[in-house]
Amino acid sequence: MNSFILKGNICYSISKTKLKTLSGYVVCKDGKCAGVFEKFPGKYKDLELRDLKDKLIIPGMVDLHIHAPQYAFRGMGMDYELIEWLNTQTFPEEAKYKDADYAKKAYTIFSDNMKNSATTRACIFATRHRNATEILMDLMEETGLVTYVGKINMDRSAPDELVEESADMSAFNTFGWINDIAGKYKRTKPILTPRFIPSCTDDLMDQLREIQRAYSLPVQSHLSENKGEIEWVRELRPDSAFYGDSYDKHDLFGDENLDLEKVNTVMAHCVWSSDEEVNLMRENGVFIAHCPASNINLTSGIAPVRKYLDLDMKIGLGSDVAGGQTESIFRAITDAIGASKMYLRYVDENAKAVTFEEAFYMATKGGGEFFGKVGSFEEGYEFDALVLDDSILAHPLELNLRQRLERSIYLSLDLCGGIKEKYIQGNKII
Amino acid sequence: MNSFILKGNICYSISKTKLKTLSGYVVCKDGKCAGVFEKFPGKYKDLELRDLKDKLIIPGMVDLHIHAPQYAFRGMGMDYELIEWLNTQTFPEEAKYKDADYAKKAYTIFSDNMKNSATTRACIFATRHRNATEILMDLMEETGLVTYVGKINMDRSAPDELVEESADMSAFNTFGWINDIAGKYKRTKPILTPRFIPSCTDDLMDQLREIQRAYSLPVQSHLSENKGEIEWVRELRPDSAFYGDSYDKHDLFGDENLDLEKVNTVMAHCVWSSDEEVNLMRENGVFIAHCPASNINLTSGIAPVRKYLDLDMKIGLGSDVAGGQTESIFRAITDAIGASKMYLRYVDENAKAVTFEEAFYMATKGGGEFFGKVGSFEEGYEFDALVLDDSILAHPLELNLRQRLERSIYLSLDLCGGIKEKYIQGNKII
Repeated sequence: MNSFILKGNICYSISKTKLKTLSGYVVCKDGKCAGVFEKFPGKYKDLELRDLKDKLIIPGMVDLHIHAPQYAFRGMGMDYELIEWLNTQTFPEEAKYKDADYAKKAYTIFSDNMKNSATTRACIFATRHRNATEILMDLMEETGLVTYVGKINMDRSAPDELVEESADMSAFNTFGWINDIAGKYKRTKPILTPRFIPSCTDDLMDQLREIQRAYSLPVQSHLSENKGEIEWVRELRPDSAFYGDSYDKHDLFGDENLDLEKVNTVMAHCVWSSDEEVNLMRENGVFIAHCPASNINLTSGIAPVRKYLDLDMKIGLGSDVAGGQTESIFRAITDAIGASKMYLRYVDENAKAVTFEEAFYMATKGGGEFFGKVGSFEEGYEFDALVLDDSILAHPLELNLRQRLERSIYLSLDLCGGIKEKYIQGNKII
Repeated sequence: MNSFILKGNICYSISKTKLKTLSGYVVCKDGKCAGVFEKFPGKYKDLELRDLKDKLIIPGMVDLHIHAPQYAFRGMGMDYELIEWLNTQTFPEEAKYKDADYAKKAYTIFSDNMKNSATTRACIFATRHRNATEILMDLMEETGLVTYVGKINMDRSAPDELVEESADMSAFNTFGWINDIAGKYKRTKPILTPRFIPSCTDDLMDQLREIQRAYSLPVQSHLSENKGEIEWVRELRPDSAFYGDSYDKHDLFGDENLDLEKVNTVMAHCVWSSDEEVNLMRENGVFIAHCPASNINLTSGIAPVRKYLDLDMKIGLGSDVAGGQTESIFRAITDAIGASKMYLRYVDENAKAVTFEEAFYMATKGGGEFFGKVGSFEEGYEFDALVLDDSILAHPLELNLRQRLERSIYLSLDLCGGIKEKYIQGNKII
């Protein structure tokens, strides 16, 4: 079932700066890439050959940061900054997910759209509600995507209907959730999700440390997104040297000595991270989810992605719906490039713009590393692929594959019906 | 034919800050708006009533700046700044339009896509080629859009195959073109188009002044887009106090005393305009075509739109394909808002972000003013409208019309099949 050969125009990242393009064959063997070949690979002659003609074959997109319950109001209420936006737009909507019927209705739309999007892997925030989170996980499992889904922990700084009753209840609910879903899914995994420092008391963070250790859970949260938020964290956590340190004080900020397969940590944004924070992220192998659209929409700022790339940090892209308006990681690729150009123009004229190659890398192999060997067609990588028909966007030119890829992404081919097939771990889901 | 009533959910700008939304009726009488009504307007009961049910009805989008010959390579070669991009991407492509067959092929794609886009009015740059420009005008006339199309003038600073032989030949070709098309079109009008100061000698500019006066032509060009370009202009035109002054020295920079209906001038970009330049634009009624995507893609910078709005300047949006990757003015609306947020964050913390209302105004009534009474449904405005089906983007909420409009635009409803009907001067073209 999960072994076959695709023939077409293949594009994928080898490294941050090297994009490989060729017309040829990519082999999927038992859900994994067995190689890319210019000529028909005779040793796989028994596998089914699927000829995609002139179409493009690229790795699936990885979304390192998206909020499922915010999907309902994406593209609206965009005239606010972070804290005001949370209070007026986000929290009132997230409170609705106490109602399982509403959660089912809203999450069905989310999961249907994620299935049809360019995304094959995602790190997803749910709400604090255990029941709704499990509904979301049931739905995501059906899509075929491989995802981490987190029930949010929050025991302060939000309206009563959204905040959990106590640190103990938040931890109790988290244990319950993890036990409920144990062994239930093939593709949908839990991830520990303290919302952000302003939402979590020290007591709760201590209890989350224990849960993380007991279940070897990966961790996702937010970091240094907005200057007002950072100031707030400084007031709440005078014990911490910097924002990231207040996660690290509870051992929830990666760890260079632990098995990274099990304890990957991803922090969204890192727009205003200090040098100390950056150093600790590097030491501890913390992933950065760069969310350019959200950082612009919420007037947060522009993350210094050139620096993160040059420091060889672990970095991928996030749509951050609904801070970002769309789940399209194609869009995130071009937004990352555009944001870096404004960073160069207004913040640091020596910070070269992010290139198309680098942004495509972040969207695939860079973010994919959070999931293991994901995001490339190199041998041994899990077989996540998109088949694109860029002929629906007419033009009069002779183009090479690099140009066709750049064009497909800049022109939002994913939004106008250009995704013709989608594979995850070798399973054809579209 | 051009008189009817549309029933649906109507949204349009009254002013920069006031968006009017209502469920009701908009009347088109002889191609012009005769009013918007909450209840059925009995005095128009003889007109055909078209019930659009729950769809949105909004004014057509106005694109004040787009390059038709660059449409072929939109979304590619995005890793350059302006001058390098002109030399490596733009000029080689524009040179191809010497060949009428190529022009026909490429411009057919452009005009088909413009017909199906959200745009109803546009100011279009062609190339320096008279024949190809006329092919473009023939095609645009067929689309039903109302456009200004300009044969470019350029007699220096470009490759031999693109630059015109001399100022005299450039002027001669322009006379020939204008005479060729005299009386030929209903919707497609010529506009004088000196490419930009680096492309035009003083001699040519003097001759263009005469042509402008002889035919009362409107004018379009580029202004203060990129710092390197501005420095170049300073070297080329030591006689001028600032970039805009080098147009004004040849009376091609608007004029407060002339009949604006006939001599509107639009300058694209105005990213780095000095106070003197801004003052002259205000005095002379020069329109600004704000092109945020292009200014980001080419690392030009961010135009101070908050200032231009607060000074009550004439301003609309431009896609600037192929500096911008898409002809979508929906996209330009959200890009204008996003760019203003980065301006606020990095340039002037007192410059409030452009609101959705203001950006929508620029895209419709603001830019529409270049064409007369265009871009609104107020009485007497020409009837340009889009009918949108936003139900194709599922959601679980109760939304008001303002929210549905913001969402339709942020989620690029125009790219995913959401435009169901399109009217220009009361003619249904989709």
